[in-house]
Amino acid sequence: MDDPNFAHVSAASRLADPAEGIGMDELGLAARNHALPLEALRYDVTPPGLHYVLVHFDIPPADAATWRLTVGGKVRTPLELSVDDLRRYPAVTHRVTMECAGNGRAGLTPRPVSQPWLNEAVGTADWTGVPLRTLLREAGVEPEAVEAVFTGADHGVERGVEQDYQRSLTVADATAEDPEVLVAYAMNGAPLPPQHGHPVRLVVPGWYGMAHVKWLRDITLTDTPFTGFQQAVAYRIRQEPDEPGEPVTRIAPRALMVPPGFPDFMTRTRVVRPGPQRLEGRAWSGRAPVAGVETSTDGGRTWHAAEMDDAGHPWAWRHWHATWDATPGHHVLSVRATDAEGHTQPLEQPWNRGGFANNLVQHVPVVCLAAGA
Amino acid sequence: MDDPNFAHVSAASRLADPAEGIGMDELGLAARNHALPLEALRYDVTPPGLHYVLVHFDIPPADAATWRLTVGGKVRTPLELSVDDLRRYPAVTHRVTMECAGNGRAGLTPRPVSQPWLNEAVGTADWTGVPLRTLLREAGVEPEAVEAVFTGADHGVERGVEQDYQRSLTVADATAEDPEVLVAYAMNGAPLPPQHGHPVRLVVPGWYGMAHVKWLRDITLTDTPFTGFQQAVAYRIRQEPDEPGEPVTRIAPRALMVPPGFPDFMTRTRVVRPGPQRLEGRAWSGRAPVAGVETSTDGGRTWHAAEMDDAGHPWAWRHWHATWDATPGHHVLSVRATDAEGHTQPLEQPWNRGGFANNLVQHVPVVCLAAGA
Repeated sequence: MDDPNFAHVSAASRLADPAEGIGMDELGLAARNHALPLEALRYDVTPPGLHYVLVHFDIPPADAATWRLTVGGKVRTPLELSVDDLRRYPAVTHRVTMECAGNGRAGLTPRPVSQPWLNEAVGTADWTGVPLRTLLREAGVEPEAVEAVFTGADHGVERGVEQDYQRSLTVADATAEDPEVLVAYAMNGAPLPPQHGHPVRLVVPGWYGMAHVKWLRDITLTDTPFTGFQQAVAYRIRQEPDEPGEPVTRIAPRALMVPPGFPDFMTRTRVVRPGPQRLEGRAWSGRAPVAGVETSTDGGRTWHAAEMDDAGHPWAWRHWHATWDATPGHHVLSVRATDAEGHTQPLEQPWNRGGFANNLVQHVPVVCLAAGA
Repeated sequence: MDDPNFAHVSAASRLADPAEGIGMDELGLAARNHALPLEALRYDVTPPGLHYVLVHFDIPPADAATWRLTVGGKVRTPLELSVDDLRRYPAVTHRVTMECAGNGRAGLTPRPVSQPWLNEAVGTADWTGVPLRTLLREAGVEPEAVEAVFTGADHGVERGVEQDYQRSLTVADATAEDPEVLVAYAMNGAPLPPQHGHPVRLVVPGWYGMAHVKWLRDITLTDTPFTGFQQAVAYRIRQEPDEPGEPVTRIAPRALMVPPGFPDFMTRTRVVRPGPQRLEGRAWSGRAPVAGVETSTDGGRTWHAAEMDDAGHPWAWRHWHATWDATPGHHVLSVRATDAEGHTQPLEQPWNRGGFANNLVQHVPVVCLAAGA
């Protein structure tokens, strides 16, 4: 079969018809790539299996003992590093909140057909590794280098393009002091789990997940900007399919709450009984520190400042809490974050063809029973 | 709000219309409860985050330091045990393959509306704990006891019934030597992750997942059979909604393969290039040891015996492998298991209203490119 464009395998991106249910292809992605169950917002650091994960193709087989990370291209001294070599550098740990750029996509109208995230594609971990700038200093970046291109071992086809997963950063972003990019080999103090990039991945604090290349096997410094699929075709904010669009970069502010009370199995509607209810959750932004969190118990008409705990980790979410005096009836609870640069969350849906960087305010319907019911 | 039947929250079970896409309620469950990405069949023991998980309601907050498991009802000596108390008994570890009773449900026509599993709701772990029969011997089961009822801390509403998740086993099953039921506190050598029942769960080798009660807080011996929701209403094999149905118990045989080659991101269609391809995967049955695995490369018309590795763990899956000489064109690969009692997998869909115990043969469409493409 001569199928150079993978026409028998792959299709162009598309939008769902307004009444179209989630398709079996979208379900296939939802079954593989999981979100953070919102009650897991209670953990400062998300355990593996609760932290969201998105794998473009397959989790590749990887043997930490034989893995090599190469650093080449426009450098004076190409490097080839084993995991043990990486562990010999002074270790640095950053607590980082990571969110998928497509978080919220399944709630959009029209819905971009892709991984159908609701609003739970997030997690926070302690990532340990070597600062990327340490490795780049050792390799010696040539003056003409403008970008570092990161290649993972994840291989497949997307919209007709066979590829290893690749993304780039400018040399300025790759070597910044803050946020400091890590070549990470541990998550929460243990070797990376397979689905989080075992044995080596990139961690780019403040950026959406697509930048944190997993199963990292090569870093190449280039003297022209990278135009590969995941940089120039995917992960662009576009209204029309043929415009170049703006790149997806840092995480827009978002707050989420642990849904109070208990759920119905199928509808996930929350049930509480009358009286004071503690509302709590997390808020984050990859653009600037979170400056405020507000809650609403009337679907977003009125807002009240929540209490925030100290921000000990600049690139991780902050815990917030508030009290709600529940009374019998139907309620819609909401929460929104604002960061120090004044970015906040919209009440009307932002929309783009990829469903990226969506940070619509969360709404949690709650039924409060009568006293004694 | 006086809503004793939770009519504002909960609905009866239903079947999807034939053309109805996956609903937002089903997607909400799929985003929370994840399957095993099929390439993770390569691991003998499934790491957390890749092992399937199904939580009926919410993962409950749990503090291992203050957790208590009570054993009461028709016993001579009621027990109250901390996790440290459990750890003082001689530890037993069993490698167990666990599968959700609803695995395969989303492929059924008509589709029961519930957790929409494809065919990947499975995983294998090393579970460590105390044999349940050790605890029951210490408590002293009264002669009139017929069942042990297990209560987890997971609380919610399902089809109008507010409940803690509860299931029972007969005293005979609860105290059997083989399979030996465990009160487990470790998974793969580490404390249970939150989503797998931290700090204590039941493990019932050979049974579908609904029997392995997570966040176990009470065991009550009863002199009448348990008729709670998850025993008498859910997890019954029925053709009509009003018949009592047969209980769901042990796992029907199934084999799955690691899809060969590499995938398209959206369709998950597999792509290979011509030449020998290693096919491999796992096969299991909770009814009897797996006696044979066969593969088909023509959509199930002809079958060929696969090689099986030694079965070192009677309640865990067995690895199998075969070779396929791929030629250009479209192919459908399949695999099926047969156990020592002669149970095997159907090529035509078995159907029941809950979508339980479905073990339809897996079909993996593969596109083999032309040589050099």
